[in-house]
Amino acid sequence: MRAYDIIKKKRDGQKLTQEEIHSIVMGFVDGSVPDYQMSAFLMAVFFNSMDEEETYWLTECMRTSGDVIDLKGIEGFTVDKHSTGGVGDKTTLVLGPVLAALGLKVAKMSGRGLGHTGGTIDKLEAIKGFSCELSTEDFIKNVNKVGVVVVGQTGNLVPADKKIYALRDVTATVDSIPLIAASIMSKKLAVANKGLVLDVKVGSGAFMKNLEDAKKLAELMVKIGKQAGRKVTAVLTNMDEPLGEMIGNACEVIEAIETLKNKGPESFTTLIKALAAEALALNTNLSHEEAEKKVCEVLQNGKAYEKLLEMVKVQGGDTSMIEDYSKLPSAQSVDLKADKDGYISNIQCEEVGLAAMMLGAGRETKDSVIDMGVGLKLVKHVGDKVSAGDVIAELYVNTSKDNSKAIARLKSAIEIVPEKVTAQKLILGIVK
Amino acid sequence: MRAYDIIKKKRDGQKLTQEEIHSIVMGFVDGSVPDYQMSAFLMAVFFNSMDEEETYWLTECMRTSGDVIDLKGIEGFTVDKHSTGGVGDKTTLVLGPVLAALGLKVAKMSGRGLGHTGGTIDKLEAIKGFSCELSTEDFIKNVNKVGVVVVGQTGNLVPADKKIYALRDVTATVDSIPLIAASIMSKKLAVANKGLVLDVKVGSGAFMKNLEDAKKLAELMVKIGKQAGRKVTAVLTNMDEPLGEMIGNACEVIEAIETLKNKGPESFTTLIKALAAEALALNTNLSHEEAEKKVCEVLQNGKAYEKLLEMVKVQGGDTSMIEDYSKLPSAQSVDLKADKDGYISNIQCEEVGLAAMMLGAGRETKDSVIDMGVGLKLVKHVGDKVSAGDVIAELYVNTSKDNSKAIARLKSAIEIVPEKVTAQKLILGIVK
Repeated sequence: MRAYDIIKKKRDGQKLTQEEIHSIVMGFVDGSVPDYQMSAFLMAVFFNSMDEEETYWLTECMRTSGDVIDLKGIEGFTVDKHSTGGVGDKTTLVLGPVLAALGLKVAKMSGRGLGHTGGTIDKLEAIKGFSCELSTEDFIKNVNKVGVVVVGQTGNLVPADKKIYALRDVTATVDSIPLIAASIMSKKLAVANKGLVLDVKVGSGAFMKNLEDAKKLAELMVKIGKQAGRKVTAVLTNMDEPLGEMIGNACEVIEAIETLKNKGPESFTTLIKALAAEALALNTNLSHEEAEKKVCEVLQNGKAYEKLLEMVKVQGGDTSMIEDYSKLPSAQSVDLKADKDGYISNIQCEEVGLAAMMLGAGRETKDSVIDMGVGLKLVKHVGDKVSAGDVIAELYVNTSKDNSKAIARLKSAIEIVPEKVTAQKLILGIVK
Repeated sequence: MRAYDIIKKKRDGQKLTQEEIHSIVMGFVDGSVPDYQMSAFLMAVFFNSMDEEETYWLTECMRTSGDVIDLKGIEGFTVDKHSTGGVGDKTTLVLGPVLAALGLKVAKMSGRGLGHTGGTIDKLEAIKGFSCELSTEDFIKNVNKVGVVVVGQTGNLVPADKKIYALRDVTATVDSIPLIAASIMSKKLAVANKGLVLDVKVGSGAFMKNLEDAKKLAELMVKIGKQAGRKVTAVLTNMDEPLGEMIGNACEVIEAIETLKNKGPESFTTLIKALAAEALALNTNLSHEEAEKKVCEVLQNGKAYEKLLEMVKVQGGDTSMIEDYSKLPSAQSVDLKADKDGYISNIQCEEVGLAAMMLGAGRETKDSVIDMGVGLKLVKHVGDKVSAGDVIAELYVNTSKDNSKAIARLKSAIEIVPEKVTAQKLILGIVK
């Protein structure tokens, strides 16, 4: 089977066979298909797309390209969530304990990665002593005991996706719904969770700029997951501004704890309730409303918060830092004020993220050191009325360095217009 | 200017600027744009095409990527022809002397190349002593004196095309009209001929499978040539079967000489007349018919044939081999007979070419040695009625090797059907 013929077939709009997809993907992974043929193939897929069956075959082939994790030994309904990116996404920190409090099992494998802020693991390491390096035995034991554990990803999971994504990233072939779906689902399905909740972001700050595309992506991913024998649901959520108020590491941990205490920002709490309700509904006969009621209970009665404490404890973290935020890393606060009257019309996620990174909250290269204390808080949100001089954001800065560029970047990311603006609602739909 | 942005712009259907095209092409040539980005770009061009202006910029940028040849010192109207490929194409061997006999100047630079048979230079080297290695001085002097000289291509002409074509060849991005036009025209315009006649082949044996695409390609190339200040015309010709009767090296030389003596195969003679008439019309006020009349004269009065003898002489070749074909390399003749009654409906060019190559007439790799004497003759043509047992082709074989596969290949390339078949006419249109 020649790569040339497979490229040409896709270029000419014909449907590929499972063998053809396997041949070009695994050929690329083992080096027998050169990158210039793979990039031509990916561009042909960008134009001629892939149908559901082709996308499933691609997902399966990538999923099994490296290690797969069976989660053997965990009792109960294991569930995972995936969010299609976003700035200020501390969902895992809250959703994990909430789901554990509801009796589900969250065996979370998370990454550090490059980004505007650290990954989930970096954020958790703001807590002194917290370790994400557990033996498989301890991991399984603690998930069974506590219901939620977060560990660093180990092993060689889905190498095909790593290699293909790196190529897509530099050849303008990222924005393809089947390629996005296969990339996400191959990684999620490589770990044998029974249930999966997908948080598909829509809007200026997300991969999917409009609801129609987001729906297509969600439907495709749900179908692939079901075909693989998993229980899957997707929540479409608005991403016209960053999630919650905090962007950083320690400050996002604080926001997560506040949310677990049912005192978090409204929009973020709404998201957690929707995702948790969907996860719970996956393995029960509850309606979304009934499930959400149970979620509200564990937020109100402190059970979700207790799960966080339990998790931090079994992972060696200093729980006193959870009980007393002043023990967490912090930094000097600087106010950012509105320079005119009007309404917040838009907060550009990417730009806010870059501002946080410039403050020191993220990694620009693999070797960058994250400053756990720095970050920012968005005080005003899309739709809010502001007057000149009002504080619209707070920055937590390292005063030993020049932060003027980061401050200017944040400022220009928050748009103020004279006309009244109505914020879009957060939950835009559910795809089952 | 990032290659990524240029790929994305073309991918999204936007028109590129001259600077953007220059940046990605020259970046690829100098190695700063990697092949995997170039192949993604080429696939995006395959899908979203290029308009006339973009194609002109691409042509110009490739044309000037290496040496350009000014033909300074040649007096009169210099003219070149280009044929978009084909099996059994010995046009240069005949057209050159014909044009010289008409007073035009043909300073032909030709290649060896890989192919089913040798290139023009290989074919000429079937003539003992013939040399294509002339100094620039002798080249110019002899063109002025004789009117036609064929030399081997030297220097670094259009390296951008070489590199891009090699990539297109393995990434299924050859079949793009703007890319084909730019590739051909960049090479043709790198040599400063005043006139250019394009022979654009149409049909099962050509790049362009249908008349509509061939016309588009011809129109685009004529426009590019004119924009570059040249006089250009294109003749659309049928290529549903190989050109003429002979496929090989020495045997094609014989067919060329016979045609110069006005005793060649009808279809090939028709093509020569059309191309020569168009070339002559480029620099005169003659109509096609008037010009063709002049072409017929030089074929009938022996002047075209004399030009061949003159050319062979100044290039050191043994003219007695032209006057006595028996001195040319030859091989044992084997008949191929029809195995049923019917009509020839199709002669697959590619397959006939491969059969000739298997006999030893072409180079499979750069180091292959061409057997000048082997080849084949197509005795029957599309539309001809045949009876079982009729000779439909002759093969000229090296009896020291097993030729059974080549013979079988040729046999299966010639299709015989029970229904009457009407051959398409050779000249399908002229684009000025």
